[in-house]
Order: sequence, then structure tokens, then C-alpha cells
Amino acid sequence: MDNVDENDVTSLSVTRVDSCDHLKMNNASGGESVKPFLELFVKASGVDNRRIGACLFCQEFWMELYALYEINLVRVEVKTVNVNSEPFKRSFLGALPPILVEPDKELMYTDNREIERRIFHIAKEFSVPLFEKDITVDKSIESLYRNFKVFLKAKTDYMRENYQVSYAGVPSPVVPAHNKLVEQLTSIDKLLAQRSTRYLVGSTMTMYDCELMPRLHHIRIAGQHLCAFEIPHTLVHLWNYMLTAYRTAAFIESCPADQDINYHYKEQLGLPHRQKDYLQTPLKTHTIPDEALENIKQLGLDKLVRASRRCGHAHDALSAHALAICVHTGARKPVGPKGANPLGCP
Amino acid sequence: MDNVDENDVTSLSVTRVDSCDHLKMNNASGGESVKPFLELFVKASGVDNRRIGACLFCQEFWMELYALYEINLVRVEVKTVNVNSEPFKRSFLGALPPILVEPDKELMYTDNREIERRIFHIAKEFSVPLFEKDITVDKSIESLYRNFKVFLKAKTDYMRENYQVSYAGVPSPVVPAHNKLVEQLTSIDKLLAQRSTRYLVGSTMTMYDCELMPRLHHIRIAGQHLCAFEIPHTLVHLWNYMLTAYRTAAFIESCPADQDINYHYKEQLGLPHRQKDYLQTPLKTHTIPDEALENIKQLGLDKLVRASRRCGHAHDALSAHALAICVHTGARKPVGPKGANPLGCP
Repeated sequence: MDNVDENDVTSLSVTRVDSCDHLKMNNASGGESVKPFLELFVKASGVDNRRIGACLFCQEFWMELYALYEINLVRVEVKTVNVNSEPFKRSFLGALPPILVEPDKELMYTDNREIERRIFHIAKEFSVPLFEKDITVDKSIESLYRNFKVFLKAKTDYMRENYQVSYAGVPSPVVPAHNKLVEQLTSIDKLLAQRSTRYLVGSTMTMYDCELMPRLHHIRIAGQHLCAFEIPHTLVHLWNYMLTAYRTAAFIESCPADQDINYHYKEQLGLPHRQKDYLQTPLKTHTIPDEALENIKQLGLDKLVRASRRCGHAHDALSAHALAICVHTGARKPVGPKGANPLGCP
Repeated sequence: MDNVDENDVTSLSVTRVDSCDHLKMNNASGGESVKPFLELFVKASGVDNRRIGACLFCQEFWMELYALYEINLVRVEVKTVNVNSEPFKRSFLGALPPILVEPDKELMYTDNREIERRIFHIAKEFSVPLFEKDITVDKSIESLYRNFKVFLKAKTDYMRENYQVSYAGVPSPVVPAHNKLVEQLTSIDKLLAQRSTRYLVGSTMTMYDCELMPRLHHIRIAGQHLCAFEIPHTLVHLWNYMLTAYRTAAFIESCPADQDINYHYKEQLGLPHRQKDYLQTPLKTHTIPDEALENIKQLGLDKLVRASRRCGHAHDALSAHALAICVHTGARKPVGPKGANPLGCP
């Protein structure tokens, strides 16, 4: 690409990580030169420029690219960028992440529509059902995040106005927004129960999962930390789906730490930051509450997951594939929960 | 919409303009209540929050909505928003313009893909060929703006490094980027010559025009002011197409002033601002150079335009429709060239 020279890349807080060499070596061994090479620029965290920020579009495209990478169709490098840095502004002239670059073709895609179209075409070319249409799923998930934001704002506004740092209940002005959110989560839970599939459309991940999984995780983390909202543990199929996310390499790899998610929403809501939160080792909550797990076991859904795994779906946190994708975040070993270490280039 | 209350709207530098009442009265007269009502939030200028900023995606969607509005399918209100204001950040929680809102349905679209999908569905519902596919056009225009940005950066970098405020020639390190840009402009000129149509696909405006017209205008204005680049006057069909843009209400209405375009690129390039530029009355250059106009006349293209107008295409600056669209920018009568006054709510 013409307009991002080496100096700019260095100045974008990008640190090369040793284990990325795996990928380079693979490609140097020949025979794979026809694979498209794609660079995805994602928003860095406001806490630390070297860490992944909580940009939902960035994670969505990262997951889609990961799905293509995982089956050996593309080479991908992900780079975190500080959108406020002058070198970034000058290099990308007003464009904001996610930005997709194909250096070999000197192409840059800065519009979500263009990025999706490019990924769509690669998937189509190789008959990968990543963009399979499902109108029921589409309708079911489309307003979820919007409803969450309405609720989050209503509740945090209420807390601010009433000088409450934490408020576990649902005050009456917030009830409509709260109920709307819970109703939609319940309807997604029902849909998942009807489908009985690992992912929304079937046994493999599609664009709908790349859209829903990050949003559900944001709802869980920001909801819990900023307005004492917990996704009801009775929504067993929904929690089981979140467990699937936490066992899907594409999700884990692209997921920001809890602190980075909270920072993002605090910034947007104008809430005060507590510096000590950001000094702690970054944490990624990728386990589910005991009660929800118990409910899953009681319904035998955990056995379905295991059965699905035996069928050869490699979307698992322990997938060997995951070790090779090259993430230039320079993150200092983000710590995940036991047994679910973030893979890639930690 | 739940999460933008009246206070927020007031604080978004939105000024109600008297002539908007036309639209309200029309709707109050009954029989039109089924028309979708859409609010488009566009980025305000950095010079003046009440003026339209130079956001290409905003203008693209604005033009598309205008096309639907013009044939009486939707009601539209456009509002400029200061993306740096705290009320805006809190209301939209991290989303950036363009943002499309359907207040009656409590829906908000913050992703370009969603916005396009919504406009696409309205156009499809009423069989408006706004999204007609044309692969030749698609290929022909897709990298133009990218190529311009590469050139603009290369040339302004050169000027900065060589302490030149203005440099009319093309210094050798900039030649490749300059040639690539001119080549693509030339190929679009050729395509337009082959087609002999008023717009890119035919006699009415499509999404491709909504994409290309604003980009060509940015290339013209920012190119001329920031790096002494002039679209060659020999590209007669291209200049004729720009003349069509300057006579298309959807374009004129949604077009930022020259100062606001220049401000946008200076910001991105880190170039110094000259305060006196922004104190002048906002100017919209919607005329074309004499030499280009002469060439158009010699080829008789001006007659084609007139013939096309007689065919009943209402995409003209003098269209009576244009008086009713409601633009909440509070802009203080931006001045256009003689005979091409911006319409709508000036």
C-alpha cells in the first residue's frame, strides 16, 4: 500500500511478536503464495495502545478473517492502532478502524461495506458458508446491542443522578429498557433451544456469530461492571452459546480484556475512570457463572458440545491452528481463565 | 428513539429552520403517515458545528435518501452533530456519523452496512432503481478516492519537506501517484464518453453517482487548494459529469462548503490552518472552469443535458421538490454560484 510507509507502521505502536515467525516460515516453504494476504488494523485500547480495544466492528471482521485463515485460505496480520496519533491520522487520512489492507494489491478498504464485500468474495470464491443467510437469525439478533445501549445509558444516568456508585435493582424509570433487553435475550435463548446447533445457523460459525458473540460478551462484561446487570442464569441455551464463544479460537483471539471493554463504555458514558482498574493485569473473563454451568449440565447441553467437537469442528480454544495467526498488538501476555489461554501470538 | 432525548438533540448544535415547517404541514394534512420517517445525523464541520462537514459517507447516504425523498417515498430530517461534544458521545455511545434513526420504530443504524441495507430495502420496496448493479462502473470508480489520498499525501509531504507553501508542478517522487490518479480519472472520462448518459448507469441517479460525485468534488476542491492539482480540462466528459452533479439537487443540498472540505483534509494531514480562510462567508464552488465548459459546448454535450432535462428527470437544481427537505444544520445561507443556490432549508 502506498500511503502507509514503514515509519508509520512503527509509529502505530505495533510490536512484532516472535511467534509470528511460524506463519512467515510456513509461507516461505512455497506453494502458498497465491493465498490473499490481508492486514486488519483494529482500534487499540484506550488503556494501553498495544492492547486490543473494544471495537465491535473490528472484532467482527477479525473473527470472519480468522475463520478463513483457520481453513488455510488467507494470510492475516492484525495490527492495533492508536486513532489519536498524528502518524495514524496522516497515514489513513481520516479513516477509522477497522481498516483492511491488501498490500500486494495496493488496496485499502476503510468502509465496513467494502471490508465485508472483500471477505464475502473470498468466502464465496472458496465456497465457505460464512455468509449463509438466515432471516430468522437476522431478525432475532438485529436490535440486541441497540437495546443494551439504551438500557445501559438509562441505568447509568439514573445512578449518576441519584449519586449511586452501584445499584443492583432496576429502578422504575429504567424498567422498560431493562425488560426490552431481557425479552430479546430470552427470545435468542429460545431460538438457540429450537435450533440445538452449536452456532446460530448450524455446526460452523457464520457472520451472525461474528456479530452476536462479541456483542453478548460486551453486554455481559459492561453490564455487570457498569450497571450491575447480569444475563439471567435461567437462559441456559444463551449461556451455553456464550460457552461456545469462549471455546471458539476466532472469538478468544480477537477478544479485548475486561478492563478494555469497561474503559470503552466509561469513555462513551463520561463515567470516571478508576486508575487502579487499569494497573491490574488484563483479565479476560471467559468462564461462565457456576449456576449457568450447572443448568447446562442438567440439560445435557455440555454433552452436545463434546459430541460436536468429536465431529471435527476445529473452532475450539485448544485448536492447533490458532497458534499461527499473527497479531501485532504487543500485548504483554493477557491472562485468560484457567484452561482458556488466549492463543495466537501471546 | 430511546437514547437520544430532547436535551441531547438541542445540545447537538441543531437549529430548527423555518422552512422545515413546509414538510411538517404536508405531513399533517393526512394521507402520508405511512411514509417512513428517517433522521440522518451527519458530521458537522470543524469550522462551524452548524455547517455540514466533509464526511463522504454522510453525503453518500444523504444523496440516496434525497433521491427517495424527491419522489415522495420517505420523510427525511438531516442534523449536523459535533462528534466531540459530550452530549453526542453519551447519546450515541461511541457511534460516529453517519447515523440513521427511525424514531417511529425506535431503531438506530450506526453501521454503514446497516444504513445501506435500510435504504436499499426502501428502494426495493418501491422498485426504485437506486441500487442497480453495474460491474463496469463499480470497477471503474472503486479505487479513485484511495488513489487521490495517496497522491495528496505524497504531494503535501513533499511540499512540507521542501518548505513549499505552493508547488504547481509534479516533483519526481510524486509522479507515480499523480499519474495513477490522472489515469483513473481518464478511464472514468472514457467510460462516461462511451455511455453518453447523464448519470453513470443511465438517465437517473444511482448509488454509484452518490459515491462518485462527492469524491470527485473533494478531489477537485482539496486537490486545487492543498496541492495545486487540477483535474485536466481535457477530460470533457468528466467535467460534464461534474456539471451534472452541480445541477443535481441531491448533490448540492448535501455538499459541504469549500472551506469545510479544505479544513477536513488539513486536519487529517496535520497542515496549519489559516484562520482568515474560515472567517470568510462559506463558498460552494459549483461552477466549472471556462476552458472545460468551452470543451463541453464544442462537443455539444450541453445540449444532451438539456434534452435529458426535457425528458422529465427532476434531478435538477431548479427542481421544485427540493424546497421541502428539512436540513437541521443552522447553516447561515451558504452561498453557491449564480443560478445554483443550494436548495432545501437555507
